[in-house]
Amino acid sequence: MPSKDLTASELAAHVGGRVTGDGSVVITRVASLDSAGEGDISYVEEQKFFEAARSSRASCLIVPESAALDFACQVQVRNPKLAFALIAEILHPPKQRAPEIHSSAVIGADAKIGRDVFIGAFVCVGENSTVGDRTQIRAGAKIGDNVSVGTDCVIHPNVFIEDGMTIGNRVILHAGVVIGADGFGYVRGDMGHHKFPQIGTVVIEDDVELGANTTVDRGALGRTRIGKGTKLDNMVHVGHNCDIGERVVIAAQTGISGSVTIEDDCIIGGQVGFGDHILVQSGAVIGSKAGVLPGKIVRPGVWWGIPIQPLDEYKRLNAHISRLPHVREQIKDLSERIKILERQVPNGDE
Amino acid sequence: MPSKDLTASELAAHVGGRVTGDGSVVITRVASLDSAGEGDISYVEEQKFFEAARSSRASCLIVPESAALDFACQVQVRNPKLAFALIAEILHPPKQRAPEIHSSAVIGADAKIGRDVFIGAFVCVGENSTVGDRTQIRAGAKIGDNVSVGTDCVIHPNVFIEDGMTIGNRVILHAGVVIGADGFGYVRGDMGHHKFPQIGTVVIEDDVELGANTTVDRGALGRTRIGKGTKLDNMVHVGHNCDIGERVVIAAQTGISGSVTIEDDCIIGGQVGFGDHILVQSGAVIGSKAGVLPGKIVRPGVWWGIPIQPLDEYKRLNAHISRLPHVREQIKDLSERIKILERQVPNGDE
Amino acid sequence: MPSKDLTASELAAHVGGRVTGDGSVVITRVASLDSAGEGDISYVEEQKFFEAARSSRASCLIVPESAALDFACQVQVRNPKLAFALIAEILHPPKQRAPEIHSSAVIGADAKIGRDVFIGAFVCVGENSTVGDRTQIRAGAKIGDNVSVGTDCVIHPNVFIEDGMTIGNRVILHAGVVIGADGFGYVRGDMGHHKFPQIGTVVIEDDVELGANTTVDRGALGRTRIGKGTKLDNMVHVGHNCDIGERVVIAAQTGISGSVTIEDDCIIGGQVGFGDHILVQSGAVIGSKAGVLPGKIVRPGVWWGIPIQPLDEYKRLNAHISRLPHVREQIKDLSERIKILERQVPNGDE
Repeated sequence: MPSKDLTASELAAHVGGRVTGDGSVVITRVASLDSAGEGDISYVEEQKFFEAARSSRASCLIVPESAALDFACQVQVRNPKLAFALIAEILHPPKQRAPEIHSSAVIGADAKIGRDVFIGAFVCVGENSTVGDRTQIRAGAKIGDNVSVGTDCVIHPNVFIEDGMTIGNRVILHAGVVIGADGFGYVRGDMGHHKFPQIGTVVIEDDVELGANTTVDRGALGRTRIGKGTKLDNMVHVGHNCDIGERVVIAAQTGISGSVTIEDDCIIGGQVGFGDHILVQSGAVIGSKAGVLPGKIVRPGVWWGIPIQPLDEYKRLNAHISRLPHVREQIKDLSERIKILERQVPNGDE
Repeated sequence: MPSKDLTASELAAHVGGRVTGDGSVVITRVASLDSAGEGDISYVEEQKFFEAARSSRASCLIVPESAALDFACQVQVRNPKLAFALIAEILHPPKQRAPEIHSSAVIGADAKIGRDVFIGAFVCVGENSTVGDRTQIRAGAKIGDNVSVGTDCVIHPNVFIEDGMTIGNRVILHAGVVIGADGFGYVRGDMGHHKFPQIGTVVIEDDVELGANTTVDRGALGRTRIGKGTKLDNMVHVGHNCDIGERVVIAAQTGISGSVTIEDDCIIGGQVGFGDHILVQSGAVIGSKAGVLPGKIVRPGVWWGIPIQPLDEYKRLNAHISRLPHVREQIKDLSERIKILERQVPNGDE
Repeated sequence: MPSKDLTASELAAHVGGRVTGDGSVVITRVASLDSAGEGDISYVEEQKFFEAARSSRASCLIVPESAALDFACQVQVRNPKLAFALIAEILHPPKQRAPEIHSSAVIGADAKIGRDVFIGAFVCVGENSTVGDRTQIRAGAKIGDNVSVGTDCVIHPNVFIEDGMTIGNRVILHAGVVIGADGFGYVRGDMGHHKFPQIGTVVIEDDVELGANTTVDRGALGRTRIGKGTKLDNMVHVGHNCDIGERVVIAAQTGISGSVTIEDDCIIGGQVGFGDHILVQSGAVIGSKAGVLPGKIVRPGVWWGIPIQPLDEYKRLNAHISRLPHVREQIKDLSERIKILERQVPNGDE
């Protein structure tokens, strides 16, 4: 689907939607309801926004199947936001840079560069490394020796990938990402700290996206893995030997100590902290700012707090804490009433 | 005010201060009370430091209007620390680099480079981008296509600015800053996560300063804004579509999710976490490590804790929590006394 | 000890261990118990792993002095993990890069480059800076003017060191580290924020290691110091004028405000936040995610929580909080019993 000027009907077909109104209108961009204009497609999901949607100047609206908005052109689908994202993938594909190896780039001996690759200015690709077809390595990125980068990746500026690391296909590494720095492990000796060996590797699987300035440390002895389709936000820290599963989502500034396993499909909020050797089981959801103690097994469900508790329990305890001033009053009241009773009841101790 | 060797009297005039003692002494540097020597100017604000100030070897002291220190040369002002900062701006202007475009720099077609610009080694400035007069772009910084950078900016080494972003005048971006990486938004489909479109922009207004390794994501559909005169510390994360007002101060490692509005003159501590779609009203102060739930409206005042509460309430509840061991004792005592009463009172249940 | 193929006996001698079994076996690598194969040495410390150790395919095991594993070749030592680390230092020395100054590197006037130095592609070393013998400065690192870098350092890709900073010997700076950015200090004036002068320096002493994307700000007027043998994990923020002692360990994403002193041998967890002007005394241990209020003196011992408390107290209060639902029940029960007593006792108020 190479063209970027498509009709609403063509886009609807792509997302399995039903067009009502004039499906021949040409769409060139996605936009939000309020900023949309001619040639734009927008979307609405919740009934409370239908009124705003009706007054949008978009050329076409994506709406829920059940919706009746009477818009000049609308595409009815089961999941409007997903359809909007899928249509955006077509209308706004990642910037294609014409294949080029910039004259300033330093390509090591025996490096294998695929077809239609873009390599920007001041890039290094080390000895014996491979770069897959159509991958873009933008200005200033540094790829070490014996690195494998797959096809259709975008390696943004100033990324660093250490020697020997493996990057899958369709991986996006945003600017400032560091893959394969030494993990943090020391053994205390008489004279100070000795580095525990940090000689392992990192495997980033297909379709992973890592946010700006995120760091993934190499395994100490084994490997650190980020599973297929997993997405990390900016400034996430992944320690040595972590095993992050597939389709995991981790928000910004979360820190994961060494040897943590996060199974498939977990959702982790921002600024969460993980001690080492934790197992997060598939289906667990951990709220932002939570803290998980070392060695913990986190079962499926929604978790919150420091240290983490089931969300319901967290809320319940928080409510109890809020009631503490009242508890104090209650105790004072009971104490007064007991004092009165004590005065009234003759002391009949034996 | 180009000279850097000025007399105490000249400096005093600059800050509207009154000189007592020998105003003809030449001042070349600012320094702290204890490290100052000949040619240095220092400052003191609080009475408790007056004694230390008297024994300083500084050539001149900035003191409060009411102070009577009898120093050989002193400048009396209303706000000594502010006067000290203003004098430092004159004595220690940002390093001026001789205008140059380094021979290794890669300047794109149709880029417009202003007068007296410094462009360091291994810098890229993309196609059709503009760099304002007297701006310094230091070694290794990467500026994308269609970027506008204003006048008198300092872009430190290894900064990255994505295509299409806008940077105002007198902006300082410290090393490793990333402007315009994709925001973190996905829609779950049957096969995994689809990227919600991240095609918006970033606007950094005049006089903004961003700390090292701070990241500001592009808007998803609209823009992310950092308002005039706002200062962010190191490693702050600003999500897509945030609108940060003017003169806001945000300390290190704070993370701001998407679509958060922080109005003018707010003060935000370090390691604070914001959920999405929060509104922080002008005049709010949020303490370090606080957590703000998504959708929250934060009114003016001082806020603290996870989730945030007014500081007074936070302190009150913390005091209650500290009293819990005492509460336990109280309950034990009441229970004992009731037991005694129950033994003493004949059970008259109907 | 230059060779990398050593016998178990030679390695045992290096760590003061006693060989049992065939000490002539040649060892080339360290490995974990489960991944080890021929030529590998592994270690075991705890009795509970002895069974797993016996079935390891390692060529040699490092074991506690008291252990009786009957392995084909074993080295008995007091501290197996330390011996393992020391042996790894020999078998896996940091990658040696052949001395070279890459043709693309930009070396400033009067820079002094030592013997056997490696300087990679797109590196800058500023005017009048010195680089000690055998130091490696990897691709894309930027060293400012008047910087001193000691001997045997490894400066990883895309590190930035500001003008005038001092780096000791055997220092490792991982990718993306920023040394000497301006500290975060402003004085509010009528028109907005004025920068408090940030003109001090940074001193990184010998044997320090800083994790990827960690930032150490310059002193405002004085200096910021990281003491000998101290290790910081990824994305740690060290504010202006901090004084971090020797052999301190600080885990990832911890943030340290200005003018904090951390004395020798402290251990600080991840995501800890320090307000300014704190003194952490030698021997203090602060748990992950803790928060320390400005001006606090932290005495030796183990500390936890926001704000920090002694760990025992923290645990005790947490237990009290968990009991709050029970407290509510107790109060309800007492209240009921008092009601009954009140009904039974004739009201004899005066």
